[in-house]
Amino acid sequence: MLPGVGVFGTGSTARVLVPLLQAEGFEVHALWGRSEEEARCLAKELGIPFHTSRSDDVLLHQDVDLVCIYIPPSMTKQIAVKALGIGKNVVCEKAATAVDSFKMVTAARYYPQLLSIMGNTLRFLPAFVAMRQLLVEGYVGDVQVCDVRVYGPSLLDQSYGWTCEELMGGGGLHIVGSAIIDLLSYLTGARAHRVHGLLRTFVQQNNLIRGIRRVTSDDFCFFQMLMVGTGSAGVCCTVTLNFNMPGSFVHEVMIVGSTGRLVVRDTQLYGQRNGSKSEELLLGDNGWVGPEAKEMPLPFLQGLSSMVKALRQSFQAHEERRSWARGPVASAPTFEDGLYVQTVVEAVKQSSSSGEWVCVEVMSQEPDPNHNLCEALQRNKN
Amino acid sequence: MLPGVGVFGTGSTARVLVPLLQAEGFEVHALWGRSEEEARCLAKELGIPFHTSRSDDVLLHQDVDLVCIYIPPSMTKQIAVKALGIGKNVVCEKAATAVDSFKMVTAARYYPQLLSIMGNTLRFLPAFVAMRQLLVEGYVGDVQVCDVRVYGPSLLDQSYGWTCEELMGGGGLHIVGSAIIDLLSYLTGARAHRVHGLLRTFVQQNNLIRGIRRVTSDDFCFFQMLMVGTGSAGVCCTVTLNFNMPGSFVHEVMIVGSTGRLVVRDTQLYGQRNGSKSEELLLGDNGWVGPEAKEMPLPFLQGLSSMVKALRQSFQAHEERRSWARGPVASAPTFEDGLYVQTVVEAVKQSSSSGEWVCVEVMSQEPDPNHNLCEALQRNKN
Repeated sequence: MLPGVGVFGTGSTARVLVPLLQAEGFEVHALWGRSEEEARCLAKELGIPFHTSRSDDVLLHQDVDLVCIYIPPSMTKQIAVKALGIGKNVVCEKAATAVDSFKMVTAARYYPQLLSIMGNTLRFLPAFVAMRQLLVEGYVGDVQVCDVRVYGPSLLDQSYGWTCEELMGGGGLHIVGSAIIDLLSYLTGARAHRVHGLLRTFVQQNNLIRGIRRVTSDDFCFFQMLMVGTGSAGVCCTVTLNFNMPGSFVHEVMIVGSTGRLVVRDTQLYGQRNGSKSEELLLGDNGWVGPEAKEMPLPFLQGLSSMVKALRQSFQAHEERRSWARGPVASAPTFEDGLYVQTVVEAVKQSSSSGEWVCVEVMSQEPDPNHNLCEALQRNKN
Repeated sequence: MLPGVGVFGTGSTARVLVPLLQAEGFEVHALWGRSEEEARCLAKELGIPFHTSRSDDVLLHQDVDLVCIYIPPSMTKQIAVKALGIGKNVVCEKAATAVDSFKMVTAARYYPQLLSIMGNTLRFLPAFVAMRQLLVEGYVGDVQVCDVRVYGPSLLDQSYGWTCEELMGGGGLHIVGSAIIDLLSYLTGARAHRVHGLLRTFVQQNNLIRGIRRVTSDDFCFFQMLMVGTGSAGVCCTVTLNFNMPGSFVHEVMIVGSTGRLVVRDTQLYGQRNGSKSEELLLGDNGWVGPEAKEMPLPFLQGLSSMVKALRQSFQAHEERRSWARGPVASAPTFEDGLYVQTVVEAVKQSSSSGEWVCVEVMSQEPDPNHNLCEALQRNKN
């Protein structure tokens, strides 16, 4: 039996997610928005019976068994941890910091019977599922290089907000890079041990953000990750993110190995073995009949749709509304994956400011809050 | 009047160059090969009346006024410097080290009336000539990012030789990266001041190179260059070279600026301004009727053809065989450019081994040879 759903957020993802949930048979009972007005408008538009701007009203709503959290990163941890504490299943977007991610991991470990997954939808995109399968089957041989590029228009919101602020979880690295970091560990089965990065904010002001306000989040980000892989030399990942390209959308993930390569462009999978003279289309785009969303690129949209399908399969296997089967969502990123991703993001930022390679060390215990304070003070000083 | 030409080298470039020279009306009088046999075979094939394995026989040949040097990098300096000393005009490929490049600069400065250019043919490719013109005219606004990728099959020769050896000038960075470094400074009018790089040799042995022999030259190279440009934040260049992709050839140079972008794919130029919804083809491929060369990718081949045309224009302006006009070859890379490029190449290598950003400092006087010896000894020790 499918659980009732409560959705946090009124942004572009929530707007796309709700109809997808409804199409799969989920009932969305409650919507939370930052303001009553935002919540009321979207609830009306999407046919959600209850709306509020108080988070407890959704978390404690008796018909809500699954909470989907798509709100600014700095608010995510608080809602996610509380939802688990109340006994609700959670799907959520990334948090703003590794410390927040660590707290989410702690909560998820404490309630292992509850579903707790990060909403990186790329893992569910059929092209990447097929790519991973082919990698396991040895299509490319030993993986040598992963080369990723995502180009598109600005990620900034229309008005000044968290997307403009590096410390609030804004920027290409945090918003898009996170999904790529997670995807590459999913595809290769390896994790980054050293990273090097360069972040830039080329557009610090625009027509809407001006005066004393400046954008601090990156609109160009390049980073490299060295991963421990199957090849003797390890895997080199290079990721280029450029969000100063209005009118474009390029989403390309290429994996080169000793005997061939695979590449996903947008939502299609291509491959070429070393002996072959040309690329072959391995998985086309046929069959996509979902909604179109202007603000959400197709790989994320299709991935989101696949994730919702997986959630349906996971829940409908059981009679009880809150029970779920692990199988259909086994490949989803856990909160532990979320902590790893956030750790890499912070290491890349650190590398960009120091100019040096930075080791990725995933937190294993919560840092002393006083130590954090010292770091924050020092950061402000520089 | 066109000068008589002497060609050094029997490799793939020499094999393509000679017919292009002949087609433009140059008479190729002499060919040098490493062995008599190699020289004899190619001379016969290309209809060159004289061949030799002794360099002086070409340099002192009375009908030779222009010397084209396409030989292993470690031998280039010696021939180029000697040719200038004898009073011949020189077109040559890159040297193996910055010290060699510096010696070539010294010779070129000493004989300013002689033509001395580096053979980076990408500068002559019509697509890049047009790209540069559009950059000057402000098509992209302030340049922010240059993003280059070159993918292709292995650069190694069939048998063990200099292409396998990093210290002999082999590897993707030295062979292809050099041309890209030169191109980016030509396009942007700026020079790298800091670089960061990562080199890998994924394939250290193959069917032909085995036993105690190992490839030391890179087959994967990634580097970043920070250039002083017109934009306040400077220009970030990212270059990815991957030569583990048999059956592919990708040559893409993209320049992103504040108001639009330009991209050359293979030999075609595309552009998109920020307001526009799609890319426009700015310079197509029509009109190319030159030879095809299996071993030389089209951008290099077409560039070489355009360079030979420019050389004809430069020389035919004058009556005297050795005189030439600067205009048609004004955009050609000088030996000074060659020294800059070699300096960047070495800085990238140094960065790859230290893991740190390296400042690009172009040599202004010849280093103490004893100091060099010490460095070489230390290098061997590690």
